[in-house]
Amino acid sequence: MRTTEPAQLFAAAKNGDRAALARIISLVERGSQAGAELSRMAFSRAHDTFTVGLTGAPGAGKSTLTNSLVEVMRRRGQDAAVLAIDPSSPFTGGAILGDRVRMQDHALDPGVYIRSMATRGHLGGLSVAVPEAARILAAVGFPTIFIETVGVGQVEVEIAEEADTTIVVVNPGWGDAVQANKAGLMEIADVFVINKADRPGVRETRRDLESMLDMSQPGPWRPPILETVAQDGKGAEEVIEAVMAHHAFAESSGLAGRRREARLAKELSRLAQAMISRKVETLLGGEEFSAAIAEMNAGRLDPRTIANRLIERL
Amino acid sequence: MRTTEPAQLFAAAKNGDRAALARIISLVERGSQAGAELSRMAFSRAHDTFTVGLTGAPGAGKSTLTNSLVEVMRRRGQDAAVLAIDPSSPFTGGAILGDRVRMQDHALDPGVYIRSMATRGHLGGLSVAVPEAARILAAVGFPTIFIETVGVGQVEVEIAEEADTTIVVVNPGWGDAVQANKAGLMEIADVFVINKADRPGVRETRRDLESMLDMSQPGPWRPPILETVAQDGKGAEEVIEAVMAHHAFAESSGLAGRRREARLAKELSRLAQAMISRKVETLLGGEEFSAAIAEMNAGRLDPRTIANRLIERL
Repeated sequence: MRTTEPAQLFAAAKNGDRAALARIISLVERGSQAGAELSRMAFSRAHDTFTVGLTGAPGAGKSTLTNSLVEVMRRRGQDAAVLAIDPSSPFTGGAILGDRVRMQDHALDPGVYIRSMATRGHLGGLSVAVPEAARILAAVGFPTIFIETVGVGQVEVEIAEEADTTIVVVNPGWGDAVQANKAGLMEIADVFVINKADRPGVRETRRDLESMLDMSQPGPWRPPILETVAQDGKGAEEVIEAVMAHHAFAESSGLAGRRREARLAKELSRLAQAMISRKVETLLGGEEFSAAIAEMNAGRLDPRTIANRLIERL
Repeated sequence: MRTTEPAQLFAAAKNGDRAALARIISLVERGSQAGAELSRMAFSRAHDTFTVGLTGAPGAGKSTLTNSLVEVMRRRGQDAAVLAIDPSSPFTGGAILGDRVRMQDHALDPGVYIRSMATRGHLGGLSVAVPEAARILAAVGFPTIFIETVGVGQVEVEIAEEADTTIVVVNPGWGDAVQANKAGLMEIADVFVINKADRPGVRETRRDLESMLDMSQPGPWRPPILETVAQDGKGAEEVIEAVMAHHAFAESSGLAGRRREARLAKELSRLAQAMISRKVETLLGGEEFSAAIAEMNAGRLDPRTIANRLIERL
């Protein structure tokens, strides 16, 4: 279907047309006129979205764990989507090779959708593009969306943190929990998973995590620490149980609502700033300011004076 | 001197009044009315500033190396200032403990000034505050300014990269050069220093650096690789020679001018964006948008629509 008519595209995607779904996400990322309308439609149709963020050091097995969690959801008869976030990838949107391979597991399964997001999107970067993509997936019928990051870069941690429930994945062995702590992952974890738990060092890692949790500010929810061997699907059921328990806790305690509001406030602020940034760059690159910039380069006019002029000009 | 009268403050600082100099930098960081004027004055008075960035992994010995480079400058009868950048420090401006200790070496020396910058500054963060502080130092009579970062975080690398000459410090031993490469330091180095060169592994590190340089885009300047034992001052003379050689090359080839212009353009853009960001946050937090934000939280109004309204309102 080559239409860009928003309502038609949505109807097709909801009926399982994967090309239409991919097209919606791409149009929103690119920020065309149709994209803006699709974004608005997704917002009004995305009820009860539930996002699960997965983060942790590269190599911790996040993709494998995500796959096994999706399998648990499918066994329970529920649909699930995956957004794989890789800000460092040179690929711009669409599925990258790794995901094509992974998708083969679910290629014939209409209940699973996997998409990589490497592009910055047209506005505000991945931290705006990801919640928009999640809403689109929710609006076309995926109530649960796993948001999996490749590493623990600032953007990735931010994205994982802003999910409804955040899983932090570590591996057994000396220092991995300490590294997670250094990367700022202790504060954002709702559920800890020690993946590759068939390797030595599980007890030490658990002890490190427990003692770091003991030292942190006590809250009404203490993140449980689970063990998985994701490659064999071992422990995946228990992770889903823990995720659902956190979800229920967050909904009943009001935490979920507060997170949703904080997330929307940030998204709005990022969007507005990104839109204005674009205007600033256009103005600074244009005719009007070229003389002022030449004066600045010659040392006769300072950046603050020009910045003030630009603000007035806006 | 408790005056905030810009011309008086500048005159005092130029006469060696350290309290006046510290006050100028603080006023500019805080962004008061006087600060803006001081910033403008510094811009028009800072001729021939030469900034040397030092970056590298924590523990590589950057502070010790900076100290030994300052000593070389002093032996040559030249004044030098140091800006020590630590974005992760909880201290807000002024000298931190480590620098108080370091400063004792030079406490009675009017030709040396060391200042830590941990604060984000009022506008645009450290990447705006640091060039402003460097200009102030140049304007009051420090022609050479060492800008030393604590780690290889994104902001720190950016700041070191925007110096006139950038030194990347590594240590001997397996993988240190590879780590530098991963942190994006290969592209920004004008001079490599293998510090702690009395330890084993110097040859391997040099070989790794050479082969990574061989693989990178060849330019008119190939970064030399020097060896130091900064604690004993060994090799510091040669590093200063290499820095001066790069400086001369950059000035004669036009590179220095291009870097200066690119740096100013970035600074201007950051300043303008930061000023507007503040306006956006104020508007979003105010009365005018509270109803719209409540509508958004209730799912009836999407972020894009509100962002568009805000842009119009600006």
